[in-house]
Amino acid sequence: MRCGVLGTGIVGQTLGAALVGLGHEVCMGSRSLPNEPSQAWADANGDAARVGTFAEAAAFGDIVLNCTAGVHSLAVVEQAGSTAFTGKVVVDVANPLDFSEGFPPRLAVAPGDSLAEQIQRLLPDAHVVKALNTVTASVMVDPGSLEQPTDLFVAGDDEGAKDQVTTLLAELGWSRDRVRDLGGLSAARSLEAYVMLWVGLMQSTGSTQFNVRVVMSGSST
Amino acid sequence: MRCGVLGTGIVGQTLGAALVGLGHEVCMGSRSLPNEPSQAWADANGDAARVGTFAEAAAFGDIVLNCTAGVHSLAVVEQAGSTAFTGKVVVDVANPLDFSEGFPPRLAVAPGDSLAEQIQRLLPDAHVVKALNTVTASVMVDPGSLEQPTDLFVAGDDEGAKDQVTTLLAELGWSRDRVRDLGGLSAARSLEAYVMLWVGLMQSTGSTQFNVRVVMSGSST
Repeated sequence: MRCGVLGTGIVGQTLGAALVGLGHEVCMGSRSLPNEPSQAWADANGDAARVGTFAEAAAFGDIVLNCTAGVHSLAVVEQAGSTAFTGKVVVDVANPLDFSEGFPPRLAVAPGDSLAEQIQRLLPDAHVVKALNTVTASVMVDPGSLEQPTDLFVAGDDEGAKDQVTTLLAELGWSRDRVRDLGGLSAARSLEAYVMLWVGLMQSTGSTQFNVRVVMSGSST
Repeated sequence: MRCGVLGTGIVGQTLGAALVGLGHEVCMGSRSLPNEPSQAWADANGDAARVGTFAEAAAFGDIVLNCTAGVHSLAVVEQAGSTAFTGKVVVDVANPLDFSEGFPPRLAVAPGDSLAEQIQRLLPDAHVVKALNTVTASVMVDPGSLEQPTDLFVAGDDEGAKDQVTTLLAELGWSRDRVRDLGGLSAARSLEAYVMLWVGLMQSTGSTQFNVRVVMSGSST
Protein backbone atom coordinates (compact mmCIF):
# COMPACT_ATOMS: atom_id res chain seq x y z
CA MET A 1 0.00 0.00 0.00
CA ARG A 2 1.06 3.58 -0.53
CA CYS A 3 0.93 5.78 2.54
CA GLY A 4 1.26 9.53 2.80
CA VAL A 5 2.49 10.87 6.12
CA LEU A 6 1.92 14.53 6.83
CA GLY A 7 4.41 15.81 9.37
CA THR A 8 8.05 15.12 10.15
CA GLY A 9 7.94 14.90 13.95
CA ILE A 10 8.24 11.87 16.16
CA VAL A 11 4.74 10.62 15.34
CA GLY A 12 5.25 10.82 11.59
CA GLN A 13 8.73 9.34 11.79
CA THR A 14 7.63 6.47 14.04
CA LEU A 15 4.50 5.59 12.08
CA GLY A 16 6.31 6.05 8.76
CA ALA A 17 9.13 3.70 9.77
CA ALA A 18 6.66 1.11 11.02
CA LEU A 19 4.71 1.25 7.75
CA VAL A 20 7.89 0.80 5.72
CA GLY A 21 8.78 -2.12 7.96
CA LEU A 22 5.41 -3.68 7.14
CA GLY A 23 6.19 -3.51 3.44
CA HIS A 24 4.35 -0.34 2.50
CA GLU A 25 5.68 2.58 0.49
CA VAL A 26 5.69 5.83 2.41
CA CYS A 27 6.04 9.45 1.35
CA MET A 28 6.67 11.87 4.21
CA GLY A 29 5.37 15.34 3.52
CA SER A 30 6.68 18.64 4.83
CA ARG A 31 5.86 22.28 4.24
CA SER A 32 8.75 22.80 1.82
CA LEU A 33 11.71 20.95 0.35
CA PRO A 34 14.50 20.29 1.07
CA ASN A 35 13.53 19.37 4.64
CA GLU A 36 16.23 17.99 6.85
CA PRO A 37 14.15 15.81 9.21
CA SER A 38 12.18 14.10 6.46
CA GLN A 39 15.28 13.57 4.31
CA ALA A 40 17.13 12.03 7.26
CA TRP A 41 14.13 9.79 7.90
CA ALA A 42 13.99 8.70 4.26
CA ASP A 43 17.74 8.04 4.16
CA ALA A 44 17.41 5.80 7.22
CA ASN A 45 14.42 3.84 5.95
CA GLY A 46 15.44 2.54 2.55
CA ASP A 47 13.97 2.59 -0.93
CA ALA A 48 10.35 2.44 0.19
CA ALA A 49 10.73 5.73 2.04
CA ARG A 50 10.63 9.02 0.14
CA VAL A 51 10.00 12.70 0.80
CA GLY A 52 7.64 15.25 -0.69
CA THR A 53 5.66 18.34 0.05
CA PHE A 54 2.40 18.01 1.96
CA ALA A 55 0.58 18.02 -1.41
CA GLU A 56 2.89 15.36 -2.85
CA ALA A 57 2.58 13.12 0.19
CA ALA A 58 -1.21 13.38 0.14
CA ALA A 59 -1.35 12.65 -3.59
CA PHE A 60 1.04 9.69 -3.14
CA GLY A 61 -0.94 7.88 -0.50
CA ASP A 62 -3.88 5.57 -0.83
CA ILE A 63 -4.14 6.34 2.83
CA VAL A 64 -2.90 9.59 4.34
CA LEU A 65 -1.95 9.97 8.00
CA ASN A 66 -2.14 13.42 9.55
CA CYS A 67 0.76 13.44 12.00
CA THR A 68 1.14 17.19 12.29
CA ALA A 69 0.69 19.16 15.50
CA GLY A 70 -3.03 19.65 15.90
CA VAL A 71 -2.87 23.43 16.11
CA HIS A 72 -1.25 23.47 12.64
CA SER A 73 -3.21 20.69 10.95
CA LEU A 74 -5.81 22.82 9.21
CA ALA A 75 -3.14 25.04 7.67
CA VAL A 76 -1.28 21.93 6.49
CA VAL A 77 -4.38 20.48 4.86
CA GLU A 78 -5.17 23.81 3.22
CA GLN A 79 -1.64 24.08 1.91
CA ALA A 80 -1.80 20.56 0.47
CA GLY A 81 -5.07 21.38 -1.25
CA SER A 82 -8.26 19.35 -1.15
CA THR A 83 -7.84 17.77 -4.59
CA ALA A 84 -4.79 15.83 -3.39
CA PHE A 85 -7.07 14.01 -0.92
CA THR A 86 -9.92 13.09 -3.27
CA GLY A 87 -11.11 9.55 -2.53
CA LYS A 88 -8.43 9.01 0.09
CA VAL A 89 -8.73 7.65 3.60
CA VAL A 90 -7.31 10.23 5.98
CA VAL A 91 -6.28 9.01 9.43
CA ASP A 92 -6.28 11.94 11.79
CA VAL A 93 -3.74 11.17 14.50
CA ALA A 94 -3.38 14.78 15.65
CA ASN A 95 -4.45 16.41 18.88
CA PRO A 96 -5.70 19.99 18.99
CA LEU A 97 -4.18 20.89 22.34
CA ASP A 98 -3.26 24.41 23.30
CA PHE A 99 -0.32 24.54 25.73
CA SER A 100 0.11 28.30 25.40
CA GLU A 101 -1.16 28.78 28.96
CA GLY A 102 0.82 25.84 30.33
CA PHE A 103 -0.60 22.82 32.10
CA PRO A 104 -3.23 21.57 31.96
CA PRO A 105 -3.57 22.17 28.21
CA ARG A 106 -6.87 23.28 26.74
CA LEU A 107 -8.68 21.91 23.75
CA ALA A 108 -8.16 24.20 20.79
CA VAL A 109 -11.55 23.40 19.29
CA ALA A 110 -14.95 24.64 20.31
CA PRO A 111 -17.42 22.42 22.21
CA GLY A 112 -19.44 20.42 19.71
CA ASP A 113 -16.58 20.25 17.23
CA SER A 114 -13.30 18.41 16.74
CA LEU A 115 -10.20 18.74 14.65
CA ALA A 116 -11.18 15.61 12.76
CA GLU A 117 -14.51 17.13 11.79
CA GLN A 118 -12.81 20.38 10.80
CA ILE A 119 -10.50 18.41 8.51
CA GLN A 120 -13.44 16.48 7.08
CA ARG A 121 -15.19 19.77 6.27
CA LEU A 122 -12.07 20.94 4.41
CA LEU A 123 -11.89 17.61 2.56
CA PRO A 124 -15.46 16.66 1.61
CA ASP A 125 -14.21 14.11 -0.94
CA ALA A 126 -12.00 12.25 1.56
CA HIS A 127 -12.96 9.86 4.36
CA VAL A 128 -11.55 11.01 7.67
CA VAL A 129 -11.05 8.48 10.46
CA LYS A 130 -9.88 9.51 13.91
CA ALA A 131 -7.47 6.94 15.32
CA LEU A 132 -4.19 6.50 17.19
CA ASN A 133 -4.36 9.95 18.83
CA THR A 134 -4.82 8.44 22.29
CA VAL A 135 -1.38 6.84 22.69
CA THR A 136 2.21 7.94 22.37
CA ALA A 137 4.06 7.21 19.12
CA SER A 138 6.02 4.19 20.36
CA VAL A 139 2.83 2.55 21.66
CA MET A 140 1.04 3.22 18.35
CA VAL A 141 3.43 0.88 16.58
CA ASP A 142 4.12 -1.56 19.43
CA PRO A 143 1.01 -2.08 21.54
CA GLY A 144 2.49 -5.38 22.70
CA SER A 145 5.06 -3.44 24.72
CA LEU A 146 2.38 -2.83 27.34
CA GLU A 147 1.69 -5.34 30.09
CA GLN A 148 -1.75 -6.24 28.79
CA PRO A 149 -3.71 -5.73 25.59
CA THR A 150 -5.23 -2.26 25.66
CA ASP A 151 -7.91 -0.46 23.68
CA LEU A 152 -7.73 1.77 20.66
CA PHE A 153 -10.64 3.82 19.41
CA VAL A 154 -11.76 4.72 15.91
CA ALA A 155 -14.42 7.16 14.76
CA GLY A 156 -15.50 8.06 11.26
CA ASP A 157 -18.51 8.43 9.00
CA ASP A 158 -17.41 5.92 6.32
CA GLU A 159 -17.55 2.25 7.27
CA GLY A 160 -15.22 1.15 4.49
CA ALA A 161 -12.62 3.68 5.57
CA LYS A 162 -12.85 2.47 9.16
CA ASP A 163 -12.40 -1.10 7.94
CA GLN A 164 -9.24 -0.10 6.08
CA VAL A 165 -7.89 1.69 9.13
CA THR A 166 -8.71 -1.26 11.37
CA THR A 167 -6.78 -3.52 8.99
CA LEU A 168 -3.82 -1.16 9.18
CA LEU A 169 -4.08 -1.10 12.97
CA ALA A 170 -4.06 -4.89 13.00
CA GLU A 171 -0.83 -4.84 10.99
CA LEU A 172 0.62 -2.53 13.66
CA GLY A 173 -0.29 -5.07 16.35
CA TRP A 174 -3.72 -3.89 17.55
CA SER A 175 -6.00 -6.89 17.84
CA ARG A 176 -9.36 -6.30 16.24
CA ASP A 177 -11.32 -7.11 19.37
CA ARG A 178 -9.54 -4.25 21.13
CA VAL A 179 -10.23 -1.69 18.37
CA ARG A 180 -13.47 -0.04 19.45
CA ASP A 181 -15.57 1.66 16.82
CA LEU A 182 -17.20 4.61 18.57
CA GLY A 183 -19.39 5.49 15.60
CA GLY A 184 -19.49 8.60 13.44
CA LEU A 185 -16.79 11.22 13.24
CA SER A 186 -18.48 13.33 15.91
CA ALA A 187 -17.11 10.77 18.39
CA ALA A 188 -13.70 12.27 17.63
CA ARG A 189 -14.70 15.01 20.06
CA SER A 190 -14.45 12.55 22.93
CA LEU A 191 -11.16 11.09 21.67
CA GLU A 192 -9.58 14.51 21.45
CA ALA A 193 -10.98 15.52 24.85
CA TYR A 194 -9.63 12.30 26.41
CA VAL A 195 -6.10 13.41 25.66
CA MET A 196 -6.34 15.96 28.46
CA LEU A 197 -6.64 13.01 30.83
CA TRP A 198 -3.79 11.30 28.99
CA VAL A 199 -1.60 14.32 29.75
CA GLY A 200 -2.61 14.15 33.41
CA LEU A 201 -1.77 10.46 33.53
CA MET A 202 1.58 11.15 31.89
CA GLN A 203 2.33 13.62 34.67
CA SER A 204 0.97 11.32 37.36
CA THR A 205 2.80 8.19 36.20
CA GLY A 206 5.93 9.92 34.96
CA SER A 207 5.75 7.92 31.76
CA THR A 208 4.30 8.11 28.27
CA GLN A 209 4.35 4.31 27.92
CA PHE A 210 0.79 3.49 28.87
CA ASN A 211 -2.71 3.14 27.55
CA VAL A 212 -6.11 2.30 28.92
CA ARG A 213 -7.87 -1.03 28.85
CA VAL A 214 -11.64 -1.10 29.07
CA VAL A 215 -12.62 -3.60 31.77
CA MET A 216 -16.18 -4.89 31.76
CA SER A 217 -18.08 -6.62 34.52
CA GLY A 218 -17.77 -10.36 34.71
CA SER A 219 -21.38 -10.81 33.71
CA SER A 220 -21.50 -8.32 30.83
CA THR A 221 -18.47 -9.50 28.88
CA MET B 1 -18.47 9.61 59.98
CA ARG B 2 -21.30 11.91 59.03
CA CYS B 3 -21.94 12.25 55.33
CA GLY B 4 -24.14 14.72 53.49
CA VAL B 5 -25.43 13.60 50.12
CA LEU B 6 -26.76 16.26 47.79
CA GLY B 7 -29.20 14.79 45.30
CA THR B 8 -31.81 12.05 45.40
CA GLY B 9 -31.09 10.30 42.09
CA ILE B 10 -29.48 6.95 41.49
CA VAL B 11 -25.98 8.22 42.31
CA GLY B 12 -27.02 9.74 45.63
CA GLN B 13 -29.15 6.75 46.56
CA THR B 14 -26.44 4.24 45.68
CA LEU B 15 -23.60 6.08 47.40
CA GLY B 16 -25.80 6.93 50.37
CA ALA B 17 -26.82 3.31 50.87
CA ALA B 18 -23.23 2.12 50.59
CA LEU B 19 -22.09 4.68 53.17
CA VAL B 20 -24.79 3.58 55.58
CA GLY B 21 -23.72 0.00 54.98
CA LEU B 22 -20.18 0.97 55.94
CA GLY B 23 -21.43 2.30 59.26
CA HIS B 24 -21.64 6.00 58.49
CA GLU B 25 -24.55 8.32 59.17
CA VAL B 26 -26.00 9.86 56.03
CA CYS B 27 -28.31 12.79 55.44
CA MET B 28 -29.72 12.98 51.92
CA GLY B 29 -30.55 16.51 50.85
CA SER B 30 -33.19 17.66 48.40
CA ARG B 31 -34.48 21.02 47.21
CA SER B 32 -37.50 20.96 49.51
CA LEU B 33 -39.22 18.70 52.01
CA PRO B 34 -41.14 16.46 52.04
CA ASN B 35 -39.36 14.73 49.15
CA GLU B 36 -40.62 11.32 48.13
CA PRO B 37 -37.42 9.79 46.71
CA SER B 38 -35.24 10.78 49.65
CA GLN B 39 -37.87 9.70 52.22
CA ALA B 40 -38.24 6.32 50.51
CA TRP B 41 -34.46 5.96 50.52
CA ALA B 42 -34.25 6.83 54.22
CA ASP B 43 -37.08 4.43 55.08
CA ALA B 44 -35.23 1.63 53.29
CA ASN B 45 -31.86 2.30 54.90
CA GLY B 46 -32.50 2.30 58.63
CA ASP B 47 -31.75 4.61 61.50
CA ALA B 48 -28.46 5.90 60.11
CA ALA B 49 -30.27 7.33 57.07
CA ARG B 50 -32.12 10.61 57.30
CA VAL B 51 -33.43 13.35 55.02
CA GLY B 52 -32.98 17.10 54.92
CA THR B 53 -32.80 20.08 52.65
CA PHE B 54 -29.62 20.70 50.67
CA ALA B 55 -28.53 23.12 53.41
CA GLU B 56 -29.30 20.62 56.17
CA ALA B 57 -27.46 17.80 54.41
CA ALA B 58 -24.41 19.98 53.83
CA ALA B 59 -24.40 21.15 57.45
CA PHE B 60 -24.81 17.56 58.67
CA GLY B 61 -21.85 16.09 56.84
CA ASP B 62 -18.20 16.07 57.78
CA ILE B 63 -17.91 15.17 54.15
CA VAL B 64 -20.46 16.25 51.55
CA LEU B 65 -20.97 14.43 48.25
CA ASN B 66 -22.41 16.38 45.34
CA CYS B 67 -24.54 13.81 43.53
CA THR B 68 -26.77 16.24 41.68
CA ALA B 69 -26.99 16.51 37.91
CA GLY B 70 -24.05 18.62 36.84
CA VAL B 71 -26.12 21.21 35.03
CA HIS B 72 -27.97 21.93 38.31
CA SER B 73 -25.09 21.65 40.78
CA LEU B 74 -24.24 25.32 41.05
CA ALA B 75 -27.86 26.23 41.78
CA VAL B 76 -27.96 23.51 44.44
CA VAL B 77 -24.80 24.78 46.12
CA GLU B 78 -26.08 28.33 46.01
CA GLN B 79 -29.38 27.26 47.53
CA ALA B 80 -27.60 25.40 50.32
CA GLY B 81 -25.48 28.45 51.05
CA SER B 82 -21.73 28.59 51.44
CA THR B 83 -21.72 28.72 55.25
CA ALA B 84 -23.12 25.19 55.43
CA PHE B 85 -19.92 23.96 53.74
CA THR B 86 -17.36 25.79 55.86
CA GLY B 87 -14.41 23.50 56.59
CA LYS B 88 -16.04 20.56 54.84
CA VAL B 89 -14.62 18.18 52.31
CA VAL B 90 -16.85 18.30 49.23
CA VAL B 91 -16.62 15.36 46.84
CA ASP B 92 -17.85 16.48 43.46
CA VAL B 93 -19.24 13.41 41.72
CA ALA B 94 -21.26 15.36 39.16
CA ASN B 95 -20.77 15.70 35.43
CA PRO B 96 -21.57 18.92 33.60
CA LEU B 97 -22.89 17.31 30.43
CA ASP B 98 -25.37 19.00 28.15
CA PHE B 99 -27.60 16.49 26.33
CA SER B 100 -29.97 19.17 25.03
CA GLU B 101 -28.70 18.63 21.48
CA GLY B 102 -28.65 14.83 21.81
CA PHE B 103 -25.63 12.59 21.37
CA PRO B 104 -22.79 13.10 21.70
CA PRO B 105 -23.30 15.37 24.72
CA ARG B 106 -21.28 18.53 25.11
CA LEU B 107 -19.44 19.78 28.13
CA ALA B 108 -21.47 22.49 29.83
CA VAL B 109 -18.38 24.33 31.07
CA ALA B 110 -16.01 26.56 29.16
CA PRO B 111 -12.53 25.38 28.14
CA GLY B 112 -10.12 26.07 30.97
CA ASP B 113 -12.77 25.54 33.61
CA SER B 114 -14.63 22.70 35.29
CA LEU B 115 -17.70 22.25 37.41
CA ALA B 116 -15.49 21.29 40.34
CA GLU B 117 -13.60 24.57 40.10
CA GLN B 118 -16.86 26.49 39.78
CA ILE B 119 -18.09 24.84 42.99
CA GLN B 120 -14.79 25.60 44.70
CA ARG B 121 -15.14 29.26 43.75
CA LEU B 122 -18.62 29.30 45.30
CA LEU B 123 -17.26 27.58 48.43
CA PRO B 124 -13.89 29.16 49.22
CA ASP B 125 -13.95 27.76 52.77
CA ALA B 126 -14.53 24.15 51.66
CA HIS B 127 -12.10 21.68 50.09
CA VAL B 128 -13.47 20.34 46.83
CA VAL B 129 -12.19 17.00 45.53
CA LYS B 130 -13.27 15.64 42.16
CA ALA B 131 -13.78 11.88 42.34
CA LEU B 132 -16.07 9.04 41.31
CA ASN B 133 -17.49 10.93 38.31
CA THR B 134 -15.87 8.54 35.84
CA VAL B 135 -17.89 5.41 36.64
CA THR B 136 -21.54 4.49 36.92
CA ALA B 137 -23.15 4.40 40.37
CA SER B 138 -23.05 0.64 40.84
CA VAL B 139 -19.34 0.53 40.00
CA MET B 140 -18.62 3.40 42.40
CA VAL B 141 -19.65 1.21 45.32
CA ASP B 142 -18.59 -2.19 43.94
CA PRO B 143 -15.42 -1.87 41.88
CA GLY B 144 -14.79 -5.57 42.49
CA SER B 145 -17.71 -6.37 40.19
CA LEU B 146 -15.42 -5.68 37.23
CA GLU B 147 -13.17 -8.36 35.80
CA GLN B 148 -9.97 -6.67 36.91
CA PRO B 149 -9.00 -3.86 39.26
CA THR B 150 -9.53 -0.55 37.47
CA ASP B 151 -8.46 3.02 38.10
CA LEU B 152 -10.17 5.88 39.83
CA PHE B 153 -8.95 9.45 39.66
CA VAL B 154 -8.93 12.23 42.24
CA ALA B 155 -8.10 15.90 41.84
CA GLY B 156 -8.12 18.66 44.41
CA ASP B 157 -6.08 21.48 45.86
CA ASP B 158 -6.04 20.25 49.47
CA GLU B 159 -3.87 17.22 50.22
CA GLY B 160 -5.64 16.41 53.49
CA ALA B 161 -9.01 16.44 51.77
CA LYS B 162 -7.71 14.10 49.07
CA ASP B 163 -6.40 11.77 51.76
CA GLN B 164 -9.83 11.69 53.41
CA VAL B 165 -11.50 10.96 50.09
CA THR B 166 -8.98 8.24 49.28
CA THR B 167 -9.73 6.61 52.62
CA LEU B 168 -13.44 6.73 51.84
CA LEU B 169 -12.76 5.25 48.40
CA ALA B 170 -10.79 2.44 50.03
CA GLU B 171 -13.82 1.68 52.22
CA LEU B 172 -15.89 1.45 49.04
CA GLY B 173 -13.44 -1.10 47.63
CA TRP B 174 -11.02 1.01 45.60
CA SER B 175 -7.49 -0.15 46.35
CA ARG B 176 -5.18 2.74 47.08
CA ASP B 177 -2.68 1.79 44.40
CA ARG B 178 -5.44 2.22 41.81
CA VAL B 179 -6.56 5.65 43.05
CA ARG B 180 -4.54 8.06 40.95
CA ASP B 181 -4.00 11.56 42.26
CA LEU B 182 -3.93 13.81 39.20
CA GLY B 183 -2.93 16.89 41.17
CA GLY B 184 -4.75 20.16 41.71
CA LEU B 185 -8.41 20.77 41.10
CA SER B 186 -7.73 22.02 37.57
CA ALA B 187 -7.24 18.35 36.67
CA ALA B 188 -11.00 18.00 37.15
CA ARG B 189 -11.25 19.47 33.64
CA SER B 190 -9.81 16.29 32.21
CA LEU B 191 -11.98 14.05 34.40
CA GLU B 192 -15.13 15.84 33.31
CA ALA B 193 -14.02 15.82 29.66
CA TYR B 194 -13.28 12.07 29.85
CA VAL B 195 -16.94 11.37 30.51
CA MET B 196 -17.69 12.15 26.87
CA LEU B 197 -15.58 9.11 26.01
CA TRP B 198 -17.35 7.17 28.77
CA VAL B 199 -20.67 7.92 27.07
CA GLY B 200 -19.25 6.72 23.75
CA LEU B 201 -18.02 3.52 25.37
CA MET B 202 -21.43 2.99 26.96
CA GLN B 203 -22.97 3.20 23.50
CA SER B 204 -20.28 1.05 21.94
CA THR B 205 -20.34 -1.69 24.58
CA GLY B 206 -24.06 -1.51 25.33
CA SER B 207 -23.28 -1.49 29.04
CA THR B 208 -22.62 0.94 31.87
CA GLN B 209 -20.73 -1.71 33.85
CA PHE B 210 -17.17 -0.88 32.89
CA ASN B 211 -14.20 1.26 33.77
CA VAL B 212 -10.72 1.81 32.47
CA ARG B 213 -7.52 0.32 33.77
CA VAL B 214 -4.27 2.14 33.09
CA VAL B 215 -1.79 -0.36 31.66
CA MET B 216 1.88 0.55 31.77
CA SER B 217 4.75 -0.94 29.82
CA GLY B 218 6.45 -3.94 31.31
CA SER B 219 9.60 -1.96 31.91
CA SER B 220 8.07 1.19 33.35
CA THR B 221 5.86 -0.34 36.04
